[in-house]
Amino acid sequence: MGISIVRFQQPDQPGQWGIVGGSVAQDQIAVLTSAYASHRELMDAWFSNPGEFTADGLTRITVKEVNLLAPVTRDIQIFCQGLNYASHQEEGGIKAGKGENLIFSKPPSTICGPDDDIIRPTGCELLDYEIELALVLKRDLPADTRVDSGNLLDYVGAFTLANDVSARDFMFGAPMLQWFKGKGQRTFCPTGPILYLLDPGEAALLSNLQLTLRLNGDVRQDAATDQLIFKPEETLTELAAFTDVNKGDMLLTGTPGGVILNANRKVGMAILLNFTNDRKRREKLVKSQQSVRYLQPGDRLTLSLKSTDGLRDFGTQNNEVRDAT
Amino acid sequence: MGISIVRFQQPDQPGQWGIVGGSVAQDQIAVLTSAYASHRELMDAWFSNPGEFTADGLTRITVKEVNLLAPVTRDIQIFCQGLNYASHQEEGGIKAGKGENLIFSKPPSTICGPDDDIIRPTGCELLDYEIELALVLKRDLPADTRVDSGNLLDYVGAFTLANDVSARDFMFGAPMLQWFKGKGQRTFCPTGPILYLLDPGEAALLSNLQLTLRLNGDVRQDAATDQLIFKPEETLTELAAFTDVNKGDMLLTGTPGGVILNANRKVGMAILLNFTNDRKRREKLVKSQQSVRYLQPGDRLTLSLKSTDGLRDFGTQNNEVRDAT
Repeated sequence: MGISIVRFQQPDQPGQWGIVGGSVAQDQIAVLTSAYASHRELMDAWFSNPGEFTADGLTRITVKEVNLLAPVTRDIQIFCQGLNYASHQEEGGIKAGKGENLIFSKPPSTICGPDDDIIRPTGCELLDYEIELALVLKRDLPADTRVDSGNLLDYVGAFTLANDVSARDFMFGAPMLQWFKGKGQRTFCPTGPILYLLDPGEAALLSNLQLTLRLNGDVRQDAATDQLIFKPEETLTELAAFTDVNKGDMLLTGTPGGVILNANRKVGMAILLNFTNDRKRREKLVKSQQSVRYLQPGDRLTLSLKSTDGLRDFGTQNNEVRDAT
Repeated sequence: MGISIVRFQQPDQPGQWGIVGGSVAQDQIAVLTSAYASHRELMDAWFSNPGEFTADGLTRITVKEVNLLAPVTRDIQIFCQGLNYASHQEEGGIKAGKGENLIFSKPPSTICGPDDDIIRPTGCELLDYEIELALVLKRDLPADTRVDSGNLLDYVGAFTLANDVSARDFMFGAPMLQWFKGKGQRTFCPTGPILYLLDPGEAALLSNLQLTLRLNGDVRQDAATDQLIFKPEETLTELAAFTDVNKGDMLLTGTPGGVILNANRKVGMAILLNFTNDRKRREKLVKSQQSVRYLQPGDRLTLSLKSTDGLRDFGTQNNEVRDAT
């Protein structure tokens, strides 16, 4: 069995790490005594000596007393996949199937806590969510590593829940359609609360996880990770061939169907017919979405990650949307 | 006056830092005795006590004896601008003018030494160059900082020469046209050799630099940095509003006209008419460029950065293109 780790903060205190689940009561955290500077250090400690991480004898604190932080620190790279579920390809107007792996990145300053507010930036009209499974590396991936299902957990040490928050008007309004601004705003990657450190025998768990997102209580996304088109081992092999993926880095594996963006024919035309006119393209895109309700201040998102059999809970996010002040 | 710093390596030795120019003879490096772990540490030391950085009494080594390294370490973010010179907008089929700032990023594993080989990845047919002025931050840029010409050098501590190497077929063949793979391959950011640490009185120098790129001896790009459409202070202000820019991070300010990509009407049509068919789009793009000679193994690039009056030399890169093995 692996172990569920959270990072949290008490008022006026630095961040601390703790164990949840297992022998620890549901509303409690067993507080770890070491002040790991990053999730890398914590993973190093656990993987070199998992037996030392017992909750027995550790101080308990109730979850309600603390502010949950992202269980990964911001000194990492975030690699992302797009269009990695058939249900999301189809709603995006893309023929479902396995073409080329869509890879992009988010800057680490997008990372925020699992219950933090999501800030809608000034000027953003089409704010959207994307629930995703995020994998966290426990060691550097050497150049040209061939990752397969047999050695996957030599590199992937943990997983967590992430929301790849997306400003659709910024993504498709930007020059040459580059997504950096649309995906890269602060608070656009709520992460956690649980970093689940995988036991080496648990590789199958990665394809038996259920992602569920609710908007104001209504289920909008609900899919199992066995539907990933490019499997983690394929994507890591592809990344290793051209870029350095380092210990602690995250890979967001893409979102299933159910996002807000309504990519009908009008949207496609708005983008293609105004390819070199950024302002007009954005205006037409926004106009094509007039009847669609995007995220608004006060909206509440609830994201959960469980085993597909529902028996194991890997954490819930609760975010409220608010406007930049 | 500022100071010109290089980083280099002698056979079987760790990287070292040195001073070039000024009182140091042209083919020599005055070897600094401190083993700064990063360019951040070196900048901290110089900006807190520039008087200590005298070449007097330091050991000299000739440039030919060493391997020049990138003068920035790889533990940084690289922010990039696109279409930031009118001459490059026009050759890209974009109406020249000031629209929206095109921002994207390159992963830091693209950084290589100024004389390193540029590796053409397997499958790449349209390899291109982009000479750029790169700015390096000397301190974190707090969220929502308003940078102007008056406080620019409170944040920008140095500049260097960079080549934003680009695989055009990967850029425009990738799903949803995302540039991460086309811009993010290892060796796609030769950097240096000189990191010029700016004296606080030298802000005007940033708009009086001349970028010149030669391909096999022929001048292909030659422009002054006063032509930047979005000035450094505007771009840093825009970045600070949505993402964290940290001490040591680089901003590549865009390339002037003269790249290889020949963005004629055929290219535009190839991209737009095959927007959701990645393979076909890439094939049509490659076909549209059949009469254009892209970078080939054995090609030699020479990039230089000087003051526009030609009196001050900020370094030269010499790269050979070779195929991935």
